Amino acid sequence: MTPSVFNLLASLPAARDGEVTQLLLTGKGVRFERIVSLGQASPEGFWYDQEEAELVIVLAGRARLTIAGESQDRALGPGDAVFLPVRCRHRVAWTDPNHPTVWLALLIDPKLKPSASRAMDER
Amino acid sequence: MTPSVFNLLASLPAARDGEVTQLLLTGKGVRFERIVSLGQASPEGFWYDQEEAELVIVLAGRARLTIAGESQDRALGPGDAVFLPVRCRHRVAWTDPNHPTVWLALLIDPKLKPSASRAMDER
Repeated sequence: MTPSVFNLLASLPAARDGEVTQLLLTGKGVRFERIVSLGQASPEGFWYDQEEAELVIVLAGRARLTIAGESQDRALGPGDAVFLPVRCRHRVAWTDPNHPTVWLALLIDPKLKPSASRAMDER
Repeated sequence: MTPSVFNLLASLPAARDGEVTQLLLTGKGVRFERIVSLGQASPEGFWYDQEEAELVIVLAGRARLTIAGESQDRALGPGDAVFLPVRCRHRVAWTDPNHPTVWLALLIDPKLKPSASRAMDER
């Protein structure tokens, strides 16, 4: 098996008509995706409420994430990573309509006992 | 459990005296790390020869990776992702000595049957 190389910021799919999710890597209980947004947000009243833990990273662009129970959205830009434990309800409040927002998402099944390390709290 | 937020490009550890690896997220058979390099390379004659599959991403900076059997190094910059199957021997030939290179590495145990999706070949 030969190595694969891919530039995550190049050859972006057109996302004007809808967010585009591409699977990059998969394993039993593990999914690693690239998501490209261009102005999309979660529908009014919709919350992600996932069975998996998720680490989401903004590679490029700007977005706002709402986390249930928090009074203010989280404004995210390049390099920002958010660890969302299993069933941590959240929604995408806004993504930049003028420039693509490129996200990486690592989703891990609770059977694998995902947990963020303490480094993730040392902002 | 509350969500954690962390900027992967900020608060970089000093790496002048040696590469710094920080665990971000862990699960059974899964490790997700941030690595900061500043001029380091693998020792002469040393090859990584890992039991795990690895997806390595350059978030910032520049590096050159040598993959066993390839005649030319791979020059890597921001956004470049390389999937290294289990036992794909490789070494870091060079990292920029003047600016930090920030890597993300996702390591997956072969028991989880990691595989890159076809999107990774559409460079």
